[in-house]
Amino acid sequence: MAFSKGHGTGNDFVILDADVQLTPDLVAALCDRHFGIGADGVLRVLPSTAPDAAWFMDYWNSDGSLSEMCGNGVRVFAQHLVESGRVAEDGPIPIATRAGLRTAFPASAPGHPGFRVDMGAPELLGTSWARIGDQKFDGIGVSMGNPHLVCAVPAVEPLSLWESPVFDTEFYPEGVNVEFYTEIEPDHLRMRVYERGSGETLSCGTGTCAVAVAYLRSSGRSTGTVTVDVPGGRLVVTLDEQTCWLAGPAVIVAHGFVDTDALRYPA
Amino acid sequence: MAFSKGHGTGNDFVILDADVQLTPDLVAALCDRHFGIGADGVLRVLPSTAPDAAWFMDYWNSDGSLSEMCGNGVRVFAQHLVESGRVAEDGPIPIATRAGLRTAFPASAPGHPGFRVDMGAPELLGTSWARIGDQKFDGIGVSMGNPHLVCAVPAVEPLSLWESPVFDTEFYPEGVNVEFYTEIEPDHLRMRVYERGSGETLSCGTGTCAVAVAYLRSSGRSTGTVTVDVPGGRLVVTLDEQTCWLAGPAVIVAHGFVDTDALRYPA
Repeated sequence: MAFSKGHGTGNDFVILDADVQLTPDLVAALCDRHFGIGADGVLRVLPSTAPDAAWFMDYWNSDGSLSEMCGNGVRVFAQHLVESGRVAEDGPIPIATRAGLRTAFPASAPGHPGFRVDMGAPELLGTSWARIGDQKFDGIGVSMGNPHLVCAVPAVEPLSLWESPVFDTEFYPEGVNVEFYTEIEPDHLRMRVYERGSGETLSCGTGTCAVAVAYLRSSGRSTGTVTVDVPGGRLVVTLDEQTCWLAGPAVIVAHGFVDTDALRYPA
Repeated sequence: MAFSKGHGTGNDFVILDADVQLTPDLVAALCDRHFGIGADGVLRVLPSTAPDAAWFMDYWNSDGSLSEMCGNGVRVFAQHLVESGRVAEDGPIPIATRAGLRTAFPASAPGHPGFRVDMGAPELLGTSWARIGDQKFDGIGVSMGNPHLVCAVPAVEPLSLWESPVFDTEFYPEGVNVEFYTEIEPDHLRMRVYERGSGETLSCGTGTCAVAVAYLRSSGRSTGTVTVDVPGGRLVVTLDEQTCWLAGPAVIVAHGFVDTDALRYPA
């Protein structure tokens, strides 16, 4: 079975083409980092049935569950469409997803191809808190379709994110992604994120948007452009009157063939 | 650059052929699990200059350092030699390593090709101890070329191996791999291992041998065959008067091409 592997700021994906039949077990086996190829998720290219996009991003989480959208994945998907000759590299690339149409616009990223993508309008949820050990942090709730809690801290490096920060389960009954950020210079932040269900990750697209939204809000702004350094690289968020844009790199690293009979499937 | 990926009981490797120039930075970039292919190490096939083996296993750790031998890697290397048509699949496969000649003998493993390999004679080091939190464990020191501390426990599952067990740094001035095992039935064990420099791993070839040696010793035996279930699968250790044999599976999962310009190199 042919595959490609790529990543956006360290959020990595196995990319498959349309003729592959997927099951949750096959996705989990492919994403296994020791017994398979290894990835945070699978992006499958399907022809779209929507009138406004030729290609559908069929996104699966590494555990074999389906997901609506992935902010870093959609850039990698766009780059795969370019490299496989399906779309022109200089034009907007409309992509159908389970969360609706996303359009990737080519945008420079240091040393790599990149795209900026409309991530939808954020929604402010009010204030809440997180706790790590005996340290308590005040935060701002932001929904980017999924729930976030954004906490400003003096420095992100010392935080212990081996396990989930404690959060207010009445405020977030379905769990929450918890982001911590610090300002390096005006409109340039450094962040770390604990993703619900995954633990600390190298990058979280929606979390990066949530951080920029909360940061701008904390200085009384509802629009602006913020550079955010995540552990896996650099992303740029632009908030305008209508929506939130996320820009960053998309890198295809390898192409190959995997022997699906040799994979280890969940018991 | 062409590559293959394979594993032995979850200990996984990027396999490269002789025409590739390797540097520590390239090895680290290939082994990066998010920005590269992802592996515990690199196995490069080189022609051997030794009279008794045609092929040399050039083994690199994932951090870019060189290593002498790898008990799980040598089986994967042997299987790669078979699959690439360099050696017959039914005969002994002599392999030159930095630790000397190793010969892989075909041996069945459930569902996969497998090999048994002479791992050399163990050396008993005496008794020592390990501590996890406020729990102290008595153990037996075993050298398999590298140092081990083997502790028998009632059950391995509850142990917390997020960080290194505390050990006697006077007894082990260069650090130690700490193994914990429990007997499931006579001559059938379950183990977990904390490898120095790596943390808890799915499998450790020399650690599996050390566990079998200590177990046999604890029942007054210096020879025997022991089945050991590691988190990544099942291995079989046979201790005879001369040496210690390790048998287990070797699986090649994928073949492909990696774009070395797209990799992320250590800063």
